[in-house]
Amino acid sequence: MQHLKNTEMTDSMILLADNQWARLYELLAEMQVSKLFVLTDVNTSKHCFPILRERLKDVQKSLIKLEIQAGEEHKNLETANNIWEQLTEAGADRKAILINLGGGVITDIGGFVASTYKRGIRFINIPTSLMGMVDAALGGKCGIDFLNYKNLLGVFQQPTSILIDPAFLNTLEAQEIKSGAAEMVKHALIGDTDAWQEMNGEVGFEWLNTNAIHRSVKFKLGITQRDPLEQDRRKSLNFGHTIGHAIESFYLGKGKPLRHGSAVAAGILCESILSKELLQLSNLECTQIEAYILRHYQKLSFSKADISSILDFMIQDKKNREGRLQFVLLKSIGEVVWDIEVKEQDIKEALMHYIDC
Amino acid sequence: MQHLKNTEMTDSMILLADNQWARLYELLAEMQVSKLFVLTDVNTSKHCFPILRERLKDVQKSLIKLEIQAGEEHKNLETANNIWEQLTEAGADRKAILINLGGGVITDIGGFVASTYKRGIRFINIPTSLMGMVDAALGGKCGIDFLNYKNLLGVFQQPTSILIDPAFLNTLEAQEIKSGAAEMVKHALIGDTDAWQEMNGEVGFEWLNTNAIHRSVKFKLGITQRDPLEQDRRKSLNFGHTIGHAIESFYLGKGKPLRHGSAVAAGILCESILSKELLQLSNLECTQIEAYILRHYQKLSFSKADISSILDFMIQDKKNREGRLQFVLLKSIGEVVWDIEVKEQDIKEALMHYIDC
Repeated sequence: MQHLKNTEMTDSMILLADNQWARLYELLAEMQVSKLFVLTDVNTSKHCFPILRERLKDVQKSLIKLEIQAGEEHKNLETANNIWEQLTEAGADRKAILINLGGGVITDIGGFVASTYKRGIRFINIPTSLMGMVDAALGGKCGIDFLNYKNLLGVFQQPTSILIDPAFLNTLEAQEIKSGAAEMVKHALIGDTDAWQEMNGEVGFEWLNTNAIHRSVKFKLGITQRDPLEQDRRKSLNFGHTIGHAIESFYLGKGKPLRHGSAVAAGILCESILSKELLQLSNLECTQIEAYILRHYQKLSFSKADISSILDFMIQDKKNREGRLQFVLLKSIGEVVWDIEVKEQDIKEALMHYIDC
Repeated sequence: MQHLKNTEMTDSMILLADNQWARLYELLAEMQVSKLFVLTDVNTSKHCFPILRERLKDVQKSLIKLEIQAGEEHKNLETANNIWEQLTEAGADRKAILINLGGGVITDIGGFVASTYKRGIRFINIPTSLMGMVDAALGGKCGIDFLNYKNLLGVFQQPTSILIDPAFLNTLEAQEIKSGAAEMVKHALIGDTDAWQEMNGEVGFEWLNTNAIHRSVKFKLGITQRDPLEQDRRKSLNFGHTIGHAIESFYLGKGKPLRHGSAVAAGILCESILSKELLQLSNLECTQIEAYILRHYQKLSFSKADISSILDFMIQDKKNREGRLQFVLLKSIGEVVWDIEVKEQDIKEALMHYIDC
């Protein structure tokens, strides 16, 4: 298999079906692998690595496990440095492969490290969190946080393969599942009204099953494959994330990291308010979204005094140009518009609304 | 202008002709630039930045100068970190452009920093050293040294444009020119016998003029454009570099960095010996090359006791697979073969020959 260009990803590389492990096994046999590394964090090392080792027990190469600390607060240059060192010391060459076994932090940092080690070695994402499966592991965005800004350093680089096995979800706490579900809610809101009806029609997360996961995976890939470098339609996936990322960075800066999904849920609520104020999102739909988020996600406790700090993080967001704040907003549930410039005052009011609701 | 895929580079992006500054001016006007950064080192900041500022005085954006220390020993993660910080603090967004104004260190590290900042901002290389013009600034290899290994971290990413103006060479010392000329000698040896005849027929570097530079630039681009990711023919450009890089890393590790060209010249000599021993390079041509290198490049003073350390660096070289040492060797002057596996004993003997000659 040739080294891939950084923006190509074909369907055959997404391993979703029942025979996915057999297909991965075949892939590895074709790939001329020199050494096979597995990046884990302290949690996936304990709970997921044994499963992987069992699944890959017939692969001829032994698995070399690398381990980092868990959590977004470790998705930084220091940890990347540590992984680069481990690869170097283990003599990883250009034919080495890195399997990223974990949630979004692992696939983000592992993809970045692999893409920059010896000008790029191949990597395979095996997401073990729901957030990883439906979002972080897909689409080729890799990176690390820097100076408390989310994903400030990174590249676009597609993994050689992505294997999604919902069996790993049994290793997770309920809060982790809810965090990942926030991205599925986002996918529904920006383009899958049927999925939204299902979600909104149920009391809890009964809708969340293997079919719903595969549907969400395919929805995201449908967008990222058409626009890998985020020139246009891929921007729609940032719905809820302009404010969401800023809130997440704000808490990270205070040394109290949030789950990504918690921040995104708050971002979805605030950006729905903006959609109602600035586009034609109906009051009814906006209220539906607001009620859904407040029902399922614990309200964050930032105060009015924190709003200006949150705004500062937003101004530094990658998706802005020349200091103007660009948003993705809903015209209606299922219909989205991007590159909407929003004034600071409107953002402040949306955040105030969140605090007061 | 769209963000480029990392492996594409068209001729129109190479600015070589007399009207090159006017063309760069036009390019910048088309490019929707938010902020224009110029990466310099302490030398190019003083000697080259004033020339650039004068040449670009009619560009509407002001130039924001960034400055790092000069020398290969600063082409590391600490310096990259420093540049990322400067870009962040200056509010560089995705539409910012980084002009790399300097030698190979600047274009290598600047390209790496730009390629990884916010998942990639555009950069323009304006090499000011001969080494930069005929080699480092061309071909899309960017990177930094890590744990004393040359270019261990990096990516393949093409600059948006490369401007080559030999006028900058007036700012250089003779030793710097000689260093860059080593890559021109390599280009001649691996594929341009006419150029080699010219070089070898003269007492000094009289052959080194603008035409010779342009010829060398086009020779390298002819190879890298056909094989950007170094799957095959691009490997030929590594002639002299397997041993050369190891020698360079060895001296860097001792805190006595060499000029890249000095290490490459020694590498060319040693790998010509290997070419004679292992391929059919004639004794006559090998002796020609050896005499040429010894006439123009000061012999390095490493000893027999250093050979095993130099070999260790070679084993970690990016171009090797599973610990086997892969070389590019000459069949004859102008004809090259790559992926030749060489035994450690043969390499040791070539290094011994160098020490004794």
